[in-house]
Amino acid sequence: MTFTPVSTAQPVKAVLFDVFGTVVDWRTGVAAAVRRFAGEQDLELDAGAFADAWRARYVPGMRRVSTGERPFVPLDVLHRENLDGVLEDLGLDPGRFRPAALDELNRAWHLLPPWPDSVPGITALKRDYIVGPLSNGNTSLLLDMAKAGGLPWDLILGSDVSKAYKPAREAYLRPAALLGLEPGEVMLAAAHEHDLAAAREAGLAAAFISRPLERGHGIPGAGVATKPWDLSVSSITELAALM
Amino acid sequence: MTFTPVSTAQPVKAVLFDVFGTVVDWRTGVAAAVRRFAGEQDLELDAGAFADAWRARYVPGMRRVSTGERPFVPLDVLHRENLDGVLEDLGLDPGRFRPAALDELNRAWHLLPPWPDSVPGITALKRDYIVGPLSNGNTSLLLDMAKAGGLPWDLILGSDVSKAYKPAREAYLRPAALLGLEPGEVMLAAAHEHDLAAAREAGLAAAFISRPLERGHGIPGAGVATKPWDLSVSSITELAALM
Repeated sequence: MTFTPVSTAQPVKAVLFDVFGTVVDWRTGVAAAVRRFAGEQDLELDAGAFADAWRARYVPGMRRVSTGERPFVPLDVLHRENLDGVLEDLGLDPGRFRPAALDELNRAWHLLPPWPDSVPGITALKRDYIVGPLSNGNTSLLLDMAKAGGLPWDLILGSDVSKAYKPAREAYLRPAALLGLEPGEVMLAAAHEHDLAAAREAGLAAAFISRPLERGHGIPGAGVATKPWDLSVSSITELAALM
Repeated sequence: MTFTPVSTAQPVKAVLFDVFGTVVDWRTGVAAAVRRFAGEQDLELDAGAFADAWRARYVPGMRRVSTGERPFVPLDVLHRENLDGVLEDLGLDPGRFRPAALDELNRAWHLLPPWPDSVPGITALKRDYIVGPLSNGNTSLLLDMAKAGGLPWDLILGSDVSKAYKPAREAYLRPAALLGLEPGEVMLAAAHEHDLAAAREAGLAAAFISRPLERGHGIPGAGVATKPWDLSVSSITELAALM
């Protein structure tokens, strides 16, 4: 099977995936880890709100790297710093916890559960396409996640390989180059339109995957595409069926 | 299962493999492609000798990069230059062939056949360890090879990721760092003792895999280890059984 998007007019050779929210359910996974942590530490916490607050610091943290305000550091480091920030916002001094306990909580991002369609969908796509993540996660994070969740990637090139965070152009172009492909031979599949827009800007094809539950239930407009993309689907299995 | 080598005294978390000769049978694969090329071009060639001559240019070509004589270029580029050199040595002007025909012959290195024990051995190791190549091949070469031969790597980080060729220290240390591991948590498995010696020098564990037929039949001393390594086996399945 081959699929040639209108936007690129080239047959797709590789389908690369945004990961947090698109392939894995970060909110459920992080909230579960926060609940365990709270139990161990005897804290009263709203685990879902904690996960949201942690995630809210994600983009600002990366932006300081993207603007050159600080040199590239792996996402693990940013997640760990952001965890301290979330705790402080809750009036909890990070220093009162054992560093190993916070490091273990930080590892929740390595072990996020795939959405139910992710493993079968990626497995189906793998027959005809190169499949891999195109994530801001670092390589070891994405590797641990793949081993734990059974994600059958052909290869894993984390953001610490390109040393660039999406939506920086280099974050899309470097993986394509390492695959020996032109940008137009690569399709990004993502649940976030700003990511797809940046991929398209860099010359990649773009498929929207609707994840209405990414931020929990009852979020207005969640999972709805506002622009036409090369494909727009509600699961990775549907993506595989269409390609 | 965990395995703790004496040399590193740390449990191994990842087993990374030399590829050309250790995981795949480069001589058989390249000779078959040379035979096809000779047939199409109506040439009389000794395909095995051609493969040997091509491979003989491998180390000198990389050395010019390692010494800084030229900037890093992917192995695909070196293989393609070396192909011209082999043709010239045979009195054949590379300019007489269509570039596409030479590029296709050069792709033989992307599609080398695994030794019979490679896929089952790597599959077995993958249950308890991170598995990947640690090769001088570029990422797209190793990816094509994995897809064609069914090598179930967890991840592929080619030499174009570290921009260093073995035996440079960085070629061993950068993959370990991207895996989030200490050098001593990584074991190199290779059929070549100079590779193992450099890996050990960089702090990795080292397993020798005997491949007596790598350079064809009747090579004196082929496949015999001359030094004690952490493990010394005759196949990847045996390595998996011991670890």
